[in-house]
Amino acid sequence: MNTTIEKPYVVGIDIGGTNTVFGIVDARGTIIACDAVKTAAYPTVDEYADAVCAGLSKLFEANGGANKIKGIGIGAPNGNYYSGTIEFAPNLPWKGVITLATMFEKRLGIPTALTNDANAAGIGEMTYGAARGMKDFIMITLGTGVGSGVVVNGQMVYGHDGFAGELGHTIIRRGGRVCGCGRKGCLETYCSATGVARTAREMLTASTESSLLRNIPAESITSKDVYDAAVKGDKIAIEIFNFTGEILGEAIADFIAFSSPEAIILFGGLAHSGDFILKPVQKAIDENILPIYKGKTKLLFSEMKDSDAAVLGASALAWELKDLKA
Amino acid sequence: MNTTIEKPYVVGIDIGGTNTVFGIVDARGTIIACDAVKTAAYPTVDEYADAVCAGLSKLFEANGGANKIKGIGIGAPNGNYYSGTIEFAPNLPWKGVITLATMFEKRLGIPTALTNDANAAGIGEMTYGAARGMKDFIMITLGTGVGSGVVVNGQMVYGHDGFAGELGHTIIRRGGRVCGCGRKGCLETYCSATGVARTAREMLTASTESSLLRNIPAESITSKDVYDAAVKGDKIAIEIFNFTGEILGEAIADFIAFSSPEAIILFGGLAHSGDFILKPVQKAIDENILPIYKGKTKLLFSEMKDSDAAVLGASALAWELKDLKA
Repeated sequence: MNTTIEKPYVVGIDIGGTNTVFGIVDARGTIIACDAVKTAAYPTVDEYADAVCAGLSKLFEANGGANKIKGIGIGAPNGNYYSGTIEFAPNLPWKGVITLATMFEKRLGIPTALTNDANAAGIGEMTYGAARGMKDFIMITLGTGVGSGVVVNGQMVYGHDGFAGELGHTIIRRGGRVCGCGRKGCLETYCSATGVARTAREMLTASTESSLLRNIPAESITSKDVYDAAVKGDKIAIEIFNFTGEILGEAIADFIAFSSPEAIILFGGLAHSGDFILKPVQKAIDENILPIYKGKTKLLFSEMKDSDAAVLGASALAWELKDLKA
Repeated sequence: MNTTIEKPYVVGIDIGGTNTVFGIVDARGTIIACDAVKTAAYPTVDEYADAVCAGLSKLFEANGGANKIKGIGIGAPNGNYYSGTIEFAPNLPWKGVITLATMFEKRLGIPTALTNDANAAGIGEMTYGAARGMKDFIMITLGTGVGSGVVVNGQMVYGHDGFAGELGHTIIRRGGRVCGCGRKGCLETYCSATGVARTAREMLTASTESSLLRNIPAESITSKDVYDAAVKGDKIAIEIFNFTGEILGEAIADFIAFSSPEAIILFGGLAHSGDFILKPVQKAIDENILPIYKGKTKLLFSEMKDSDAAVLGASALAWELKDLKA
């Protein structure tokens, strides 16, 4: 008997500092049903787990029951795949090491796996998106921060401790911009949404050139604002993309020397800027890459919708889970 | 029947620009018999393969015959594991793409695998050395160049094209020293033997401080010379180690963010300098690493003898080979 047919669904849970979104997903990557709770509304993690599991139970009842669910996948900040724990996540209300996967298994009796959000996005891309059929690729998520998921030989790279793949915190400008991690010059300080806003502020201050971006409060400029301005031919907006793309391309050229991936897949805000970001990134890769790798690695945008990606990515983790022992 | 007992030996071949060394190795990593030819003495690769295979056949005859050999592993510059080819190796006399593994299989009827020298060193370390039992580690070879072998989930990382793991050519000082690869600021330009000699020349020129290194022609200073001087308390020699170690440690801190390895294993000339190199590398790792990785990754020296490592490393490739189809 085929367990995939017996249990045709998985659950994906995306835990963010503000919202926790969870949904039931089928094998084609369709979200069958979906709901959310406010993460910070629960002072203890037990109350939080109770609330999410109650929400899930309702979804199960409306969709054929819990016995249709093969497994649960969770994407969470500072998620450790090996132990199923969240460890010292600065943006979540509960401190220390939280054994979240076990808490869900105990409450629902369904096998549960957990990893960080960028790794989940990588697994989602491999299962449902642009990386289908690829054995070696690197997912780079360009959001509030810069995350990454590295896949080698068809397997997510977790490292010896479960925390591998923090490429947003490799140093791309030694002594450069101060990063939230306490260090300087991390890729994230240049290529995240906050990094782009920072670049915009710096460029608008350094120049007297007119720009559509001067109509937006400098602290809140997003890559979408920069894109909208660039489309209208705004010089500073185009310069922001070129600067950001050059740094990202330099970083990617070095990432390729590590695992020689078939593709680099960009996801998140910046990835919706088309050629404005793709061209300077590709140019910087070509100019900085070791000759033996030149022209071999594809630069692609994610094929996942931003709104679905987090839940789908987390859900993809669950397809590989084995049944719990009774 | 156990084929390991039936065929108790493997062959390791290390192809360098000057010498090709080959030997028969047992399962414990003992080199049973060994010989060498001059690589550049053979204008065509066919003549070269004939010579090496003739040399091997003699060794086989003296050690129980070719049917005792489970497989042949070759470590070669620009070696491609997937295709068993050497591709455009600048330091070898034969140009283009050379199907060397197939040439050996045809001549000897023994399954043959090939990879680059640093990957072979990594597999050797995992099979016979400091990385036994490890599933995630990075081997860094500090020789004339800087090579690397990355192991993830117990598997060597070859990437989609067979050439992954060129960490010596990640950029550690953007716009820095000119590298043989045509780019600037590669790790190799600072931490290879040539890099150390270059640092010595720069420091001796920039300072008037007396130094034992002033007695050695600046072009030919090796890490061994620097070590000998440092042991005697030579200030410039110690400064060279600190400079080299700082750069290597900065690079390693970023490598750890990629695959979060259990250990970094240093091999080659610099790795014989004990605490003179280990301390500044460890200090720079600690100062530059992302907090979640701090104190988790061991920094180790290789446990392979330099003289044996290349042949042992190449031989280790061969244990996993399947028999050739008749």
